[in-house]
Amino acid sequence: MLPMADRQREDAAPPPFARIAIVGYGLIGASLGLAIKEQWPSTLVVAVDRKDVIEDAMRRHAADVGGDDLGLAGDTELVVLAAPIRTNIRLLAELPAYVAGEALVTDVGSTKRDTVAAARHLPPRLRFVGGHPLAGAATGGIAAARPDLFRGRPWILTPEAPGDSHDALKLGAVLEAIGATVQMLTAQAHDRLVAYLSHLPQLAATALMHVVGARAGEEGLALAGRGLRDTTRLATSPVGVWADILATNTDNVGAAIDELVDTLLRLKADAGAGDPTVRTFASAAEWKRRLDRLFEGS
Amino acid sequence: MLPMADRQREDAAPPPFARIAIVGYGLIGASLGLAIKEQWPSTLVVAVDRKDVIEDAMRRHAADVGGDDLGLAGDTELVVLAAPIRTNIRLLAELPAYVAGEALVTDVGSTKRDTVAAARHLPPRLRFVGGHPLAGAATGGIAAARPDLFRGRPWILTPEAPGDSHDALKLGAVLEAIGATVQMLTAQAHDRLVAYLSHLPQLAATALMHVVGARAGEEGLALAGRGLRDTTRLATSPVGVWADILATNTDNVGAAIDELVDTLLRLKADAGAGDPTVRTFASAAEWKRRLDRLFEGS
Repeated sequence: MLPMADRQREDAAPPPFARIAIVGYGLIGASLGLAIKEQWPSTLVVAVDRKDVIEDAMRRHAADVGGDDLGLAGDTELVVLAAPIRTNIRLLAELPAYVAGEALVTDVGSTKRDTVAAARHLPPRLRFVGGHPLAGAATGGIAAARPDLFRGRPWILTPEAPGDSHDALKLGAVLEAIGATVQMLTAQAHDRLVAYLSHLPQLAATALMHVVGARAGEEGLALAGRGLRDTTRLATSPVGVWADILATNTDNVGAAIDELVDTLLRLKADAGAGDPTVRTFASAAEWKRRLDRLFEGS
Repeated sequence: MLPMADRQREDAAPPPFARIAIVGYGLIGASLGLAIKEQWPSTLVVAVDRKDVIEDAMRRHAADVGGDDLGLAGDTELVVLAAPIRTNIRLLAELPAYVAGEALVTDVGSTKRDTVAAARHLPPRLRFVGGHPLAGAATGGIAAARPDLFRGRPWILTPEAPGDSHDALKLGAVLEAIGATVQMLTAQAHDRLVAYLSHLPQLAATALMHVVGARAGEEGLALAGRGLRDTTRLATSPVGVWADILATNTDNVGAAIDELVDTLLRLKADAGAGDPTVRTFASAAEWKRRLDRLFEGS
């Protein structure tokens, strides 16, 4: 089943895992498959997803074998859950029935606490380390997958018990080899941080576009400038993915929304006249310059 | 005083005004000066601003003569007020003492009601039509000025009385000749529309960056993705300009903030679970696609 090109290439370094299963071949899962095949051509990558997605994955050389049966993950050493968060949580409950031997299990979900909690029910032979690659693209799905998606991007791991650290380091080495910068955080710290870094910007962009579109209408939007366009870039994000994220980070997202609302209402109260407006603008400008410098530096 | 290059070029069309004064040589004023000199080299462009700005304007060939004295506008046929909004309003009160003859007066401020109201006190020989070019750049000031800044961008005019229409058409012809697309709106409709198209995105970006920066800190920001960067692009906007905008559009901005706050709190209440989240995401995605199509079409 291996494409000839892959058979002839040689691994850049000894493969840390001989057989890896990736469950869910969207943007992240398929990009991971591509990255692993590029780095370690001899590693067997097993894809699990709907039949039509698997066909696409095989055509793109993003996997060696595949199908819609979780049993295909049965004989692998690393299982990566790359479906939507609540599907991953369901898969964690099903996995012990399909994987008889030892395996390291990880996921790529955008929230971590609920997934890490569900993984506590795994039998000891299935060791779990949660993960979250902070990488994306304007459009999702396997069609946008590319092997360098994780290059230069953070990949957060959330090991729980001290006993996880060997697994976290082994997994981290794989992720660093495909270009990611690995960071360790607790699941709690992770979920709180992404509520601000990722979930709040998404909700602000969605709410803003919803309000502005309804009030301005198409005729009004024709007069909009690049500011509105950039500020609302995230507004086409698929709600399916976001329903899972919001459902598993409700408390942190709620607190973040409350802070944004407080700041907006303070700006309203002082509109143009007060010192607080000047201070909020100055604080925002300073953080923005730091954010842009961090990107230029990376 | 005219640079040789300008003396030798010929006007593309007969100049509608032989002498134009532009008061305030920031991004908009200086770009307008450049655009007019490019289109009608024989038109005398008079610049009024601080001495160092005028020197810069002359070096850039954005004006023929200039100085820091409003009296320089005295003998012109068109006076363009391109200072911050509340400075323009003060200039409207001073103008009659400096301009003895007839002149058309306009401004380029981002809000219109207060300026239009102040212009009602002008003597009849000074006819006023408010204006607002919807054009900008990442950085302001004369250093970012360019003659094509207005090309393909809307320029809203807000004539008041029916008697203004001749002046609005003459001014509109000048603006269309330098590439802008002229639209007529009442000052009321203008201020309400820009509260949504421009002021709300600015405040959302500022509030978001303020909250996220304070919570994530520099270490957290290092994990941010392009989503946060784009959503907060406007966060470095100069507060000086915005203090004037917010002070002269407080009611509309307040109503727009209230709607954004309501939408955010609804998203919080339904986080991930409810139908309203799906509907808000769907509405935002649909408006965003329309917004992007409008840009691609232009």
